[in-house]
Amino acid sequence: MTTDQGPKSDSHPLDTIFYPKSVAVLGVTPTPDTVPNDIFRNILTSGYTGVLYPVAPFKRSIYAVKAYRYVLDIPDEIDQAVIVYPGNVCHKAVQQCGEKGVKSIIMISAGFREVGPEGVKREAAVKEICDQYDMKLIGPNCLGVINTDPTSMLNASFARKMPAAGRIAFLSQSGALCTAVLDYALGKGIGFSKFVSFGNKAGVTDIDLMRYLHKDPKTDVILIYLEELRDGRGLVEAAREITRGPGAKPILLIKSGRTPQGADAAASHTGSLAGEDVIADAVLKEAGIIRVDTIDELFNSAIMMTYQPPPRGRRLAIVTNAGGPGVMATDAAVNMGLEIPRFGEETTNRLKTALPAAANIKNPVDVIGDARADRYSAAIEAVLDDDNVDQALVILTPQSMTDIEAIAECVVTGHERTDKPLACSFMGGRDVQAGIDILQAARIPHYILPEWACGALLDSNTFNEWKDSPEPSLEQLDVNAGTARAIINSAPAGYMSEDQCLGVLGAYGFPVPPYRLCTSGDQAASFAKELNCPAVLRIVSPDIVHKFEVKGVALDLNGPQAVRQAWDEMMGHVARIMPKARIIGAIVRPMIPSGKEVILGAKRDNVFGPIIMFGLGGLFVEVFKDVTFALAPVTAPRAASMVRGVKAYELLTGARGTEAADVQGIEECIRRLGQLVSDHPRITELDINPLLVGSADVGNSVADVRIRLAP
Amino acid sequence: MTTDQGPKSDSHPLDTIFYPKSVAVLGVTPTPDTVPNDIFRNILTSGYTGVLYPVAPFKRSIYAVKAYRYVLDIPDEIDQAVIVYPGNVCHKAVQQCGEKGVKSIIMISAGFREVGPEGVKREAAVKEICDQYDMKLIGPNCLGVINTDPTSMLNASFARKMPAAGRIAFLSQSGALCTAVLDYALGKGIGFSKFVSFGNKAGVTDIDLMRYLHKDPKTDVILIYLEELRDGRGLVEAAREITRGPGAKPILLIKSGRTPQGADAAASHTGSLAGEDVIADAVLKEAGIIRVDTIDELFNSAIMMTYQPPPRGRRLAIVTNAGGPGVMATDAAVNMGLEIPRFGEETTNRLKTALPAAANIKNPVDVIGDARADRYSAAIEAVLDDDNVDQALVILTPQSMTDIEAIAECVVTGHERTDKPLACSFMGGRDVQAGIDILQAARIPHYILPEWACGALLDSNTFNEWKDSPEPSLEQLDVNAGTARAIINSAPAGYMSEDQCLGVLGAYGFPVPPYRLCTSGDQAASFAKELNCPAVLRIVSPDIVHKFEVKGVALDLNGPQAVRQAWDEMMGHVARIMPKARIIGAIVRPMIPSGKEVILGAKRDNVFGPIIMFGLGGLFVEVFKDVTFALAPVTAPRAASMVRGVKAYELLTGARGTEAADVQGIEECIRRLGQLVSDHPRITELDINPLLVGSADVGNSVADVRIRLAP
Repeated sequence: MTTDQGPKSDSHPLDTIFYPKSVAVLGVTPTPDTVPNDIFRNILTSGYTGVLYPVAPFKRSIYAVKAYRYVLDIPDEIDQAVIVYPGNVCHKAVQQCGEKGVKSIIMISAGFREVGPEGVKREAAVKEICDQYDMKLIGPNCLGVINTDPTSMLNASFARKMPAAGRIAFLSQSGALCTAVLDYALGKGIGFSKFVSFGNKAGVTDIDLMRYLHKDPKTDVILIYLEELRDGRGLVEAAREITRGPGAKPILLIKSGRTPQGADAAASHTGSLAGEDVIADAVLKEAGIIRVDTIDELFNSAIMMTYQPPPRGRRLAIVTNAGGPGVMATDAAVNMGLEIPRFGEETTNRLKTALPAAANIKNPVDVIGDARADRYSAAIEAVLDDDNVDQALVILTPQSMTDIEAIAECVVTGHERTDKPLACSFMGGRDVQAGIDILQAARIPHYILPEWACGALLDSNTFNEWKDSPEPSLEQLDVNAGTARAIINSAPAGYMSEDQCLGVLGAYGFPVPPYRLCTSGDQAASFAKELNCPAVLRIVSPDIVHKFEVKGVALDLNGPQAVRQAWDEMMGHVARIMPKARIIGAIVRPMIPSGKEVILGAKRDNVFGPIIMFGLGGLFVEVFKDVTFALAPVTAPRAASMVRGVKAYELLTGARGTEAADVQGIEECIRRLGQLVSDHPRITELDINPLLVGSADVGNSVADVRIRLAP
Repeated sequence: MTTDQGPKSDSHPLDTIFYPKSVAVLGVTPTPDTVPNDIFRNILTSGYTGVLYPVAPFKRSIYAVKAYRYVLDIPDEIDQAVIVYPGNVCHKAVQQCGEKGVKSIIMISAGFREVGPEGVKREAAVKEICDQYDMKLIGPNCLGVINTDPTSMLNASFARKMPAAGRIAFLSQSGALCTAVLDYALGKGIGFSKFVSFGNKAGVTDIDLMRYLHKDPKTDVILIYLEELRDGRGLVEAAREITRGPGAKPILLIKSGRTPQGADAAASHTGSLAGEDVIADAVLKEAGIIRVDTIDELFNSAIMMTYQPPPRGRRLAIVTNAGGPGVMATDAAVNMGLEIPRFGEETTNRLKTALPAAANIKNPVDVIGDARADRYSAAIEAVLDDDNVDQALVILTPQSMTDIEAIAECVVTGHERTDKPLACSFMGGRDVQAGIDILQAARIPHYILPEWACGALLDSNTFNEWKDSPEPSLEQLDVNAGTARAIINSAPAGYMSEDQCLGVLGAYGFPVPPYRLCTSGDQAASFAKELNCPAVLRIVSPDIVHKFEVKGVALDLNGPQAVRQAWDEMMGHVARIMPKARIIGAIVRPMIPSGKEVILGAKRDNVFGPIIMFGLGGLFVEVFKDVTFALAPVTAPRAASMVRGVKAYELLTGARGTEAADVQGIEECIRRLGQLVSDHPRITELDINPLLVGSADVGNSVADVRIRLAP
């Protein structure tokens, strides 16, 4: 919770969007029920504390307010311009705004990036003018901006109504969704601090707005609806700062376009390109962002976090007058990860005294169908007083003798005695409404379904655990970056050769077994003798990517003689079938006995930048998609959680009669990989497949690797 | 859909519960706001078409209706008695009802099975009297029964209000949940045909009621809330009859107690024992029951199925004025298993003509934020006319120019032209309510969230596909049941010996490799010579379950000499470490080279009877729980879907460079196993682990088996 002061003392570059001293609406018409008219009327009638000017060519006034032909004609200073001209003329208006000294622009107009190449150009032109005059730009293609702070009371949007003031901020890429959200909130008595439809985010981005709201003393929770993750890494970095440490605020996000079909629809909607959703899921979680699927979930959790104190743990007490819903809530809570604790002895005694014999005094407490307020009151107070309980859920079904309003009152009273969060579910519809109104007035979150209450409590717990967890620090491992850089710089775009790959991995401290790039059968045989163990021969050629297909790999060669013979056969065969291939030579290395395998991968994602993947080899990855992801670079705790996060993890721990693997070694490889791809941006893909896994004393070894470089 | 006639023509034994000509309430008091008083008043004031009598000792009248001391004192015939006496005196009232010739009893009273052993006895006593006099018993421990059929109009319950008439039947084990459901339905304008709280189901069961509702011409959809699956197999059999063939009706079920904690709470609530939930999930699906998790899902789907025609396929068109929610709905639909088809050329042309250039004319159709009714109307009619579309979802967000009511009207008009189902989601709360009212009046299902609409459409599709799918017939396989029976009859309770197990499997046609139970080293060596391949020796003793632990297994024995030597070592070792073990001999069989393994299991479930399990061997079962279940016996299509139902199935198909397995042979083994455990009820557990899987020409072979017998 933050103190309740306006933003004026510490001015912020984006203040001019929410707290302009004067606003001009450019492109107003007198025709009611049009977007330009609605916006002007909204600002005029919502209590805006500054001065409003209509720019409406050829009109004397709009709603009796003196109108101007151009923004430059206005004799006073203008902080903010709201532009509603057709898209193809906006750049002229923006240019005039720049000349006028306007500080922020809300561009409602559509016809930009979302309509194709022509629009992209238009958007770039507008952006350039804004940058030139240092004007902050919201939009284009948006619903507008609302600030309920009484010092501003700005409704620069074409929403139907000004929402109530509250401590929830809402940011949306979709303007249309904003109108549904405002209507939804109105029905539930939910208020907002700031409300922004940012549309194409050509200027001010969602990330800029999040950072602003982090510092906004009027905002406790930040909600975002996104169709397109343009700068995924920037979002993650901002979210990490916002969701942890002093003044941390929860971020709840809906990112639509989860399925390929949904992403298609999103692409045709705001011209956005949805990233791979599984990666987004993993990465957003790693940044402390709580991702939800529906508008209901978004607000269910938001009101819990704004209305109620943070829970101290996951233990939930349930009080109900109906066994069935109690069971359903228990199921939901446990499935989600909450706990249903046993009560302490004192609580049990208090419940035994207060409730009839047929009641269930264990958690979930069933005060039975004929319960009136006295029983609810006793049960709620008893469980909230219990040290084994961190939060409570009160369920009510309207039976003929249920005094609904009295019970709502006693919930309010019971809750005032404690600093533990409480949620209610008065089930039904009409009869329970009066009770719900009492709860909402006292800011006790109410949910139609007990399952929703559990979901909201869970999110509240998740945030609180995250907020207080230390930000892990990134430790640089000792590597030979210069050697790796020299190899990478010498290589052309495309796949690196095997000796180059092994050289790079070796420089970064990966467990690469001894190898030598040989250029003759003699040299190969001699190195095989040195190795003194069964050997492998692998051809090296810039023209051969799939070695096995051209018999460019020979396995399990016992002794120098076998190596020399294999060399001759291999070179002969390749010369016959690929006469034009440039052959550099072949690598000789020890044959590693097969065993457990893991896969380490890296790729440079368009949205999130370098990403690291981990999974157990073969079927686990291919059939069960049993993999984990993280952003590179990877901290030590994150590497540990990546390895522990796969379902097949127990196979590495020595369970089921198998040998325990060198898990610490795997984690170190993950960190080395994260450092490698972060240090060398030319690496676009890297696969260590497999990393052969040995026990802790034997260690792991890189069996095969591919690295692809950008130009 | 069924014809709309009363039930009188074809009388049914349970008619007396819903259509009594006279009702006596036993245990009424004049005190308002008590259960007995509420029930009497509900029947009196809800329009009941028969005659009502209060039985209230020491009272002259209740609500001015003449009262009687005992039911036997009433001078007229009594069809139904509603009993609200305390639990410990109910048996006396029931006895008098029997003597009076009462035909059905609704026992509201609590204090039976749910309160422990004493209650169990009481319940049995009441049940016995009911059986003796052939009285149908609902309850005890329930809310009562409601029948909205105008020929009866019976509200024999302590619900607050009589619900509206409708075509949905609701059955609930929890009485308290009923009150919430009634209030919920009231708020949404949902009506019911029959409404039953069946409580402890001591007499008439949920299954009896389902069968009754199947024949009830007033009911289209059957909803059930269950805490306890007492007779799982009976439920499955009833459901299979109800959900397929002519007059099929959908069954939607909430079964609570999914988690162990939830099951605990359920146990303390109605004294029920929740079965293993994963099995229940599989088995209920196999019976055509649609299982849902929440009350909302239950009614979301129920209104879709009662209000709208059945869909012809899974292809969904979406029309929206807001891109964001369109994307979210697309995501939800695709994730659930619906399809988002491309439109035909004609539709595309119609949309192009009717909508502005900026609109998205692909599916999901975006008519854009400023759309009014004309655009909606054109889009809805165009997509519903498209042969590629089976159903439609209309999404609306309330923007400033959205004429909500006119759009609702045009949805209704557009829908009247077609026999394809349609759902709406007018998002928001207050502003959209007038539109929602118009939709509901026209029986167009409305959902607050587009995701809910998709869920309801999916359930409707699932039911329609199921209803028209042929009931697979069970083909008996050719087996030697007599031989198996003789072996089983000769065996004591507990684990059977290996030779007995193999004998039973052999008799049932499983691929058992050649084996012989030998009693001397000579005999073993001689059989090994006959086999003429590497052999295995496995000790047989009723005292040894874990053979490997006592070195009772010798593998890969090459030739008779090796077998004889292994025999001597094995017998010597066992004699030393388990001198008291009774050694019958050892089995000699060929060593089967290791390869792919599957597991076939059977167990006799308390709730569902014999169950068959299938999975791929080892880690797939143990780590990923990648298994499928079916009730025994197993039909051929079901066996096929069990094998195809595991995620690792592709490993059996020859994908990823592995050899294709004899899948047909595995399916046949599943069917043989189903037949075996169905034929021989003494088998309580059976595990073929592993069945070694070969290619189609080699075939599969049983490598190990354990069978446990009941006494």
